Amino acid sequence: MSDDATAFVPGHITGFFSAHPDDDPAVAGSRGAGLTLSHGVTVTVEPAAESVVMLDGEPVEMPPVVDVLSTLGVTATVSAESELPLGAGFGVSGAMALGTAFATNAVCSCGRTENELVTIAHEAEVRAGTGLGDVVAQARGGMPIRIDPGAPGHGRMDGIPARPTVEYIAFGGLSTADILAGDTTTLTAAGEAALETLLVEPTLDRFVAESRRFARDAGLLTERVESAVEAVRDAGGDASMAMLGETVFALGTGLTDAGFDPKRCRVHSAGATMHSE
Amino acid sequence: MSDDATAFVPGHITGFFSAHPDDDPAVAGSRGAGLTLSHGVTVTVEPAAESVVMLDGEPVEMPPVVDVLSTLGVTATVSAESELPLGAGFGVSGAMALGTAFATNAVCSCGRTENELVTIAHEAEVRAGTGLGDVVAQARGGMPIRIDPGAPGHGRMDGIPARPTVEYIAFGGLSTADILAGDTTTLTAAGEAALETLLVEPTLDRFVAESRRFARDAGLLTERVESAVEAVRDAGGDASMAMLGETVFALGTGLTDAGFDPKRCRVHSAGATMHSE
Repeated sequence: MSDDATAFVPGHITGFFSAHPDDDPAVAGSRGAGLTLSHGVTVTVEPAAESVVMLDGEPVEMPPVVDVLSTLGVTATVSAESELPLGAGFGVSGAMALGTAFATNAVCSCGRTENELVTIAHEAEVRAGTGLGDVVAQARGGMPIRIDPGAPGHGRMDGIPARPTVEYIAFGGLSTADILAGDTTTLTAAGEAALETLLVEPTLDRFVAESRRFARDAGLLTERVESAVEAVRDAGGDASMAMLGETVFALGTGLTDAGFDPKRCRVHSAGATMHSE
Repeated sequence: MSDDATAFVPGHITGFFSAHPDDDPAVAGSRGAGLTLSHGVTVTVEPAAESVVMLDGEPVEMPPVVDVLSTLGVTATVSAESELPLGAGFGVSGAMALGTAFATNAVCSCGRTENELVTIAHEAEVRAGTGLGDVVAQARGGMPIRIDPGAPGHGRMDGIPARPTVEYIAFGGLSTADILAGDTTTLTAAGEAALETLLVEPTLDRFVAESRRFARDAGLLTERVESAVEAVRDAGGDASMAMLGETVFALGTGLTDAGFDPKRCRVHSAGATMHSE
């Protein structure tokens, strides 16, 4: 057995969602749709006397990661390297929780299946209030449609069969925990309507259009995001906002065509993955 | 809209399985476990006045592919290039059916979700008698455990969280249709026992050991496969037989260490995927 193990977890941008809290964190979750990114988080776990969580070389408070280690009964140094900013709607905390579950299982021979590890990470995110749907999406890859809320065995998933290029600009963060702790009635109604429409026409164009409509109807658009989305539309493309961050995303070269200097990656075809053995 | 679309579908080796026929082809399927391969089949679909199916440049009879086109209401030239031999337990017919579904959906804007396309291909394979579990495994990627039989929405899946190197040698073919049409009582009892054991200990070693036990108990081992498996075990590794073909597979360098000259690839992390747009 080697001394450490490493997992890669794709980033995840939620385009729209509805919140479905529940006392059972495996049942709690969100419905909605999004895209997983070839930019993501690499998580290395090495058993240690005391647990420490590092992100890009700095110690961080990351309750879902600590929760995952505790569920698996392990103390370890968790070192994450992220291509994506934290707190800007890319699912970095979900990626860290899920990557920790996969890598810990490998290095400590915990003997769990993939669904069991996804469930452990999903429950940790729900308990921490840092996310409702990122973990199950990041475990699947592609462009996940979350038909039902919850962990594997509760939530059915589907997907849009396409793998486009994605451009994004992160202007800044929004607190997922604050928004999820507030009144989500309007947001959830807008998310349910968007999902219904997408399932009738599960295409790229419809996904971005419904995401944009959701961001507006849920009252989540910031001025900077709204202005960037309008610029992309004026240039003949379409764009929307990552839930939940002050981040704008477009497919293809939408942001470049509008004169921005975005980051660029692809929709990722695989979910969370152990580095090859 | 471009004139054609291309999908890649990983190969799939089933290690063990139980057969679960049903009058509804979406419900019919198999339980069991296997590994998807980075070697696979690339399928290009171009609409045409009459349907033609080509494999590696030669016209072939491939009823599941014709069935998929018919369900989607399209006539087309389907051109498949396979890194894997047909009829030797690599799921090439399933890959062709699934790749045809994905590529046809893209080029003809059929507007189906991934689960809908997987269901169409699964039903086509079941109706043709050419496979019971390859399509859902190939849609998922990784090392799929088929907990329930059937298409998405019927069959739950899980996975072994590992991505090892795979070596294989194909000695020749076996007829899946002949074996599935015969008495599958013994085979199914052995497959159910193997699945139960794997779910208690979902590891690579257990997967190969249970596959080997299944091949023996189900009476499917041929002399050539049995002798290769024994040689790998004598060299300190482990190996088993691909269901259903006269093919032996091992993880890591098992076959090389035993003096064979195998093909080598990896477990594939992604399922069937459209080429990037």
